[in-house]
Amino acid sequence: MNNQDSFYMNLALQLAWLKKGTTSPNPTVGAVVVKNNQILSTGITQPPGGFHAEREALNKLSLSESEGAALFVTLEPCSHFGKTPPCTEIIIEKKIKRVVIAALDPNPLVSGKGLVILKKAGIEVEVGLLGKKAKEINEDFFHWIQKQIPLVTLKYASTLDGKMALENGNSKWITNERSRKITHILRYRSDAIMVGFNTVRMDNPLLNARLYQREKNLLRVIIDPEGKTPVDSQIASDNLSALFVVKKQLVSQSFVQVISNRPEKEIYYDCEEGFEINLSNLLKYLGKEKKITSLFVEGGSGVLGSFLKQGIGDRVFVFLANKFVGQGLSPFSGFRVNEVKDGIEIDDIKIKKLKNNILIYGNLNWKT
Amino acid sequence: MNNQDSFYMNLALQLAWLKKGTTSPNPTVGAVVVKNNQILSTGITQPPGGFHAEREALNKLSLSESEGAALFVTLEPCSHFGKTPPCTEIIIEKKIKRVVIAALDPNPLVSGKGLVILKKAGIEVEVGLLGKKAKEINEDFFHWIQKQIPLVTLKYASTLDGKMALENGNSKWITNERSRKITHILRYRSDAIMVGFNTVRMDNPLLNARLYQREKNLLRVIIDPEGKTPVDSQIASDNLSALFVVKKQLVSQSFVQVISNRPEKEIYYDCEEGFEINLSNLLKYLGKEKKITSLFVEGGSGVLGSFLKQGIGDRVFVFLANKFVGQGLSPFSGFRVNEVKDGIEIDDIKIKKLKNNILIYGNLNWKT
Repeated sequence: MNNQDSFYMNLALQLAWLKKGTTSPNPTVGAVVVKNNQILSTGITQPPGGFHAEREALNKLSLSESEGAALFVTLEPCSHFGKTPPCTEIIIEKKIKRVVIAALDPNPLVSGKGLVILKKAGIEVEVGLLGKKAKEINEDFFHWIQKQIPLVTLKYASTLDGKMALENGNSKWITNERSRKITHILRYRSDAIMVGFNTVRMDNPLLNARLYQREKNLLRVIIDPEGKTPVDSQIASDNLSALFVVKKQLVSQSFVQVISNRPEKEIYYDCEEGFEINLSNLLKYLGKEKKITSLFVEGGSGVLGSFLKQGIGDRVFVFLANKFVGQGLSPFSGFRVNEVKDGIEIDDIKIKKLKNNILIYGNLNWKT
Repeated sequence: MNNQDSFYMNLALQLAWLKKGTTSPNPTVGAVVVKNNQILSTGITQPPGGFHAEREALNKLSLSESEGAALFVTLEPCSHFGKTPPCTEIIIEKKIKRVVIAALDPNPLVSGKGLVILKKAGIEVEVGLLGKKAKEINEDFFHWIQKQIPLVTLKYASTLDGKMALENGNSKWITNERSRKITHILRYRSDAIMVGFNTVRMDNPLLNARLYQREKNLLRVIIDPEGKTPVDSQIASDNLSALFVVKKQLVSQSFVQVISNRPEKEIYYDCEEGFEINLSNLLKYLGKEKKITSLFVEGGSGVLGSFLKQGIGDRVFVFLANKFVGQGLSPFSGFRVNEVKDGIEIDDIKIKKLKNNILIYGNLNWKT
């Protein structure tokens, strides 16, 4: 490991970030091929069905070009046939001399296997350069592979005095344009987005991710125990995918009939007693059946409160506006603690100033 | 103006900050005497009755030392007899050659007079070097001189989700030690501190400013319309000054009798109808009768809400803890707006990370 190596690996990491949100349920990976201190080619993992980063980079090179070169790659090359042939194959075939890997595959069943194959082929292999950064990029993928449930990010926007909306429901616009743009980036990097039916009733949102003129079809999940989402709302009537989470015992049959006849719309039944959705079961369903690696929870306060009550959530993003409004809606409805020390702490707090708004984000600490 | 000059003036400003909070109702001023690129002496304005910064610095020098030197001073030297003789006199007497002034005296009746006297004596005078920084140090003094009311700073500490306390009143400790230390610094730099009677009832606070083992006697102002502060609370029974703000028509006579018999305790009567204290009148009283240049309002939420309702307040300091508690007490009780755009904006937002807490501060924008 030297400065030169770090430079190439950082480039590979930056390339990976460019495609973040487009490769799921595969990880986002970047690769850089270097010979005689010259960058010969680069590659980024393509959407599912397309090539992985290594093959993207190596396909561009003739054997005489690639022979003896070094490959910098942000994640361990795969060694098995999936939708595409294994990356270890082309690395050997292209006579790469040295492979520098930032992080090993998080899947314990295959982790290290690519490494072994490369070593057996006589290739020098190094592991761990900028490994922490590499894991950060695919935090959701690592989480999903290891726990089979999506990484959950709670997000809300409030005034500095902690109000998501006024008492009359008015919430346009708490935050500035820059904050809303970043929200779209965060959505774009997610596989699914979640809101409560009340948010749909109040705002009739599209809940898409508009970014750089590309539109992403993420799975929109609506928490709606009784089936009260207006069936003519955008989310219930457009031709994009949506999953309505209802209580088997409470949902109105008319709602079920209308929704289940629509393509792209799906109903998830929670069969437990009571009004509250069991989020743990829902996450298992999303992870296993829908291959959702990351869930972005955008409210409202009832849904956000349920996550805290049930002790679920990995990261939090809070957008604060430079405003006081006094009375209004607080972010976590229904959640309470008896002592301040029982409050849920946020670790590794980071802050970004967005003109006159402030983004604060970190990891929820469940003290388990 | 050159880099060398800026260096000396910055030093004078730093000296001034050292005594911030001890000179009121006089401004905090720093002075540096320089000859042949050597610092001969420095001075800081002493508490009322003591010398001003210029005299502090020049007294230490013999005439042969000071003759031909330059004086850097953060505020225009005074030209009138107060508790001490005018600073212009000693500057002339000590044969200073050049005086560099950061900011002119904010009092329109005397502003520029010191300048003229020095110029008439043949001294080179320059004004404005780091003037903005110099005004910031004495923001409260400038405000008080020009408006005859104190500069009002609203302060509260809350969780990231905007709760100052739990529903059961528990608020120990929302913020970390570092945040509480900065609160003590802010108190120390203020002339008066304000809380509501409920805060006294709940916490029985000392409301002093403990700093670097020095204790500051600031005027403690308690908003207490009906006279409900427990007469055996620390604030009502210690031997330090406190002002109880009551409603003439509502206050209990027993409270008035007990308090008015105690030295250092005083009662301010608001004679208007209703329960709410007229803060504008109170500020005029504090500015004119008590020479309070800066008021630090520490809550609770009823008092903070009154300031917003009445459109009063200059600066705000918000300490945010890295915690979610869900239900609890919001910062501005009784204040509401009908549209988000009617919220009170905070300008010139600044952020400081205090380990895992966050301090956000800025200026209230009343759009007037």
